Amino acid sequence: MIETGKPVHVNGIDFGGSDFVVIGGPCAVESEDQVLSTARAVARHGAKMLRGGAYKPRTSPYSFQGLEEAGLRMLAAARAETGLRVVTEVMSVTQVEVVAAYADMLQIGSRSMANDALLEEAGRAGKPVLLKRGMMATPEEFAAAAGLLIARGCPGVVLCERGIRTFGNSTRNTCDIAAVPLLQRMTGLPVIVDPSHASGRRDLVAPLSKAAVAVDADGLIVEVHPKPEFALSDGEQSLSVAEFGTMMLELDRHLEIWREGRAAAVAV
Amino acid sequence: MIETGKPVHVNGIDFGGSDFVVIGGPCAVESEDQVLSTARAVARHGAKMLRGGAYKPRTSPYSFQGLEEAGLRMLAAARAETGLRVVTEVMSVTQVEVVAAYADMLQIGSRSMANDALLEEAGRAGKPVLLKRGMMATPEEFAAAAGLLIARGCPGVVLCERGIRTFGNSTRNTCDIAAVPLLQRMTGLPVIVDPSHASGRRDLVAPLSKAAVAVDADGLIVEVHPKPEFALSDGEQSLSVAEFGTMMLELDRHLEIWREGRAAAVAV
Amino acid sequence: MIETGKPVHVNGIDFGGSDFVVIGGPCAVESEDQVLSTARAVARHGAKMLRGGAYKPRTSPYSFQGLEEAGLRMLAAARAETGLRVVTEVMSVTQVEVVAAYADMLQIGSRSMANDALLEEAGRAGKPVLLKRGMMATPEEFAAAAGLLIARGCPGVVLCERGIRTFGNSTRNTCDIAAVPLLQRMTGLPVIVDPSHASGRRDLVAPLSKAAVAVDADGLIVEVHPKPEFALSDGEQSLSVAEFGTMMLELDRHLEIWREGRAAAVAV
Amino acid sequence: MIETGKPVHVNGIDFGGSDFVVIGGPCAVESEDQVLSTARAVARHGAKMLRGGAYKPRTSPYSFQGLEEAGLRMLAAARAETGLRVVTEVMSVTQVEVVAAYADMLQIGSRSMANDALLEEAGRAGKPVLLKRGMMATPEEFAAAAGLLIARGCPGVVLCERGIRTFGNSTRNTCDIAAVPLLQRMTGLPVIVDPSHASGRRDLVAPLSKAAVAVDADGLIVEVHPKPEFALSDGEQSLSVAEFGTMMLELDRHLEIWREGRAAAVAV
Repeated sequence: MIETGKPVHVNGIDFGGSDFVVIGGPCAVESEDQVLSTARAVARHGAKMLRGGAYKPRTSPYSFQGLEEAGLRMLAAARAETGLRVVTEVMSVTQVEVVAAYADMLQIGSRSMANDALLEEAGRAGKPVLLKRGMMATPEEFAAAAGLLIARGCPGVVLCERGIRTFGNSTRNTCDIAAVPLLQRMTGLPVIVDPSHASGRRDLVAPLSKAAVAVDADGLIVEVHPKPEFALSDGEQSLSVAEFGTMMLELDRHLEIWREGRAAAVAV
Repeated sequence: MIETGKPVHVNGIDFGGSDFVVIGGPCAVESEDQVLSTARAVARHGAKMLRGGAYKPRTSPYSFQGLEEAGLRMLAAARAETGLRVVTEVMSVTQVEVVAAYADMLQIGSRSMANDALLEEAGRAGKPVLLKRGMMATPEEFAAAAGLLIARGCPGVVLCERGIRTFGNSTRNTCDIAAVPLLQRMTGLPVIVDPSHASGRRDLVAPLSKAAVAVDADGLIVEVHPKPEFALSDGEQSLSVAEFGTMMLELDRHLEIWREGRAAAVAV
Repeated sequence: MIETGKPVHVNGIDFGGSDFVVIGGPCAVESEDQVLSTARAVARHGAKMLRGGAYKPRTSPYSFQGLEEAGLRMLAAARAETGLRVVTEVMSVTQVEVVAAYADMLQIGSRSMANDALLEEAGRAGKPVLLKRGMMATPEEFAAAAGLLIARGCPGVVLCERGIRTFGNSTRNTCDIAAVPLLQRMTGLPVIVDPSHASGRRDLVAPLSKAAVAVDADGLIVEVHPKPEFALSDGEQSLSVAEFGTMMLELDRHLEIWREGRAAAVAV
Repeated sequence: MIETGKPVHVNGIDFGGSDFVVIGGPCAVESEDQVLSTARAVARHGAKMLRGGAYKPRTSPYSFQGLEEAGLRMLAAARAETGLRVVTEVMSVTQVEVVAAYADMLQIGSRSMANDALLEEAGRAGKPVLLKRGMMATPEEFAAAAGLLIARGCPGVVLCERGIRTFGNSTRNTCDIAAVPLLQRMTGLPVIVDPSHASGRRDLVAPLSKAAVAVDADGLIVEVHPKPEFALSDGEQSLSVAEFGTMMLELDRHLEIWREGRAAAVAV
């Protein structure tokens, strides 16, 4: 349906090619020390990109609002030291320019997937975009939102399955793992998985990450925090640095099979 | 939870008081003739406000994009002739100023309920806002979005139940009629119902409108088109002018009970 | 789709004709005194039928299991004194015969709507059936289950909308009020509403009951308990006798319009 | 929450131990030839058990009703020749005895998960049970249904995640892959995955099967038909014999990691 080249290039990192790209980092940028220590740790354990929100939803005026441009500078500083590429969320059209000035990749969050004005502005910013699935969006609606980015000239779109809203409350969302191959075929775009938001539970992050590798996803975006119990947001779904390291080790064996599959596909 | 005065004033029309406010009009403003003829008709049948979209979602570059400011001028012309107040949707922060210059009330659509940047800008525009429930939003999330408008100084917020997304496809959405009294108590704000989007079917608009009156909703917003079969959007859920007239007549008897209830409440 | 005669006769009471049938009573039969006092009270306030479960789901071996045949005898005794007809749930094929011996109408619960063996047995029992919608059933699946009853010779089927399972937890289920006219047209069968299970909240029972009248439902089934705070099940959604009386009074005005509508339909 | 021994023994096959158990076979038993040729094929490709329905839901009197006891005899004959153990669905209490006489394991289908009478009868039959998740059941409700089987003396319960009903229609259901580790921890029972019903699409069966292995499920139940295009039911989600063979080969590499994980768990 959408014809765009794969892989998607993000400042030297490729999604949808022969590498499985792991993005790690905190939900929100809280301090220079927090970002830098997390960045060093996730880089050491094999992540290629750093995530972290500088702008946070402001539904309640009493909750943490994000560090804004100061946060973006901290992410850039972490990149300078670690070499990790930076993806961070842009929540409104007025933030696009400043976020694009610091980030290697713009993130459009789940709550913004249907925000056409934001998609258009982000699509024109000249940066690749990580587009998260709306929590009640069908695959078709998700693909259409990606199409809007591409129609505005976006140089590369990576889709992210992050769980859909269903009944029940034993998990925060329901990870629609079948949507990964479905979306890959429907759109031709790389698709990664966010096991942290999909489950909302630290103990399910590693199993879902392995499932993502098994269905041939193109990568992962994982919440990691140096001290999850003190995180200002999403602590209950963030891995500690040690847990992230253990998971990355466990993924290694699964990724061997993944790489063989990609190599075989190229050979054909 | 939110403390704001009722009723909400919209240029001489009150929501949440002793009048049940019916808003009628087409999904999209298509032409001067279409708007004016619809406006005259809905006014004649008892509507107090005119709806009609000048800006439309642009998911597909091939579908109708809306008439934009020209459409706003047509709505204003219809107001000048009929006395109907105008509510129309604002879809991005850059549209807030121009829409506020023409409309009596800004509409935030279902797809935008979680767009905090838009809520903030709309909240600062000095106009009352009709806020539609996100199709995946809980009552608590809906109330929080209203809170953000109010926190930015919005002079009045009216909530609109417009159906939620569930399983099945015999209706476009599922009208959560119980949410009307629930939201009224939770927020203290007026709550109206959109039976057109909630069902997506012309034949269910009248029953749902009666249900809205029965649960003591504060009004209705109904899609009416002079020729539904030629509508550029939402034709299958739009009433013809004659159908709207018939429905308004049928509602009369139900509204008698509604008015007695309101009068009794004031007397207490 | 299904061709059966309306109204459905239940031992002298008609569903789908010129009377709006209200069924009241406790979730579970707990004692002779509880049933009889509830029956007297609901009859005094205008109910025509008595509900009450003699067999309860046994998911936990520690919760109340129902009084079984002793409970059925209590219901029959209450009928003898009050004249109320009795509807009570049958949960397995082995209960059909004994329940049919005492009850005027068999109830098939939401959890059993997809239990074909039970539908077949109940359909052959020679009694009219009140069939509740499965909490995950589409209108089409609901209609098909009714069709199975009718195919086995059931003398009359009344459908009951009792809420569907969706996201969120401010209500127990989501009352799909639009399903009432939809199912009436799709099946030609009478459709009633269970506002108690649909909402799970006492404060929403009256609004949903009014909505049911407004959409031209054929009746209501309402949980009433002499002391809701001591009910062995569903206390939080049961009305007290006084609350039921108040609601029935409030419904009167709405039922005037309902009756006019039915009379007009017959006149055509 | 439920304390039962693992592994669950099914006539010499163990679920929840050191073997990943694959169950293959047609949706419905259609003929001796169909069952036998499928059984030989799935056995050759590594399945340990044979599935196939002898009793089918009878929602429409015009659709295929199942071969009943003749179908059970065909399954038993296929077992005699291939050594595959047989699991087949029991749909009503009256079928329990005859099904238990032929099958090694009783299956309780998704539509029956809330059928307490059937659970009780099946629990008393002395055979292990494969219990499928209701399509809108929470993990807690699923675990409670398993508890009822165990409370009635069932010698072993294996849970099956088979997809839940959500919005959208690009897949038949949504495979809740995170429920596998969740249910394993919540209940202590083996959990397998049904990728055929979870997706309803042949092209998603292999990816979901790999995901099941990756999250450490205890097995799979897969629909396989010698000629899917002529299947009397579920043809669009059935694998051909050749597709099943290819998938089993692909799973091998994934199962190596699975076995290492199980061996490591035992060593601890």
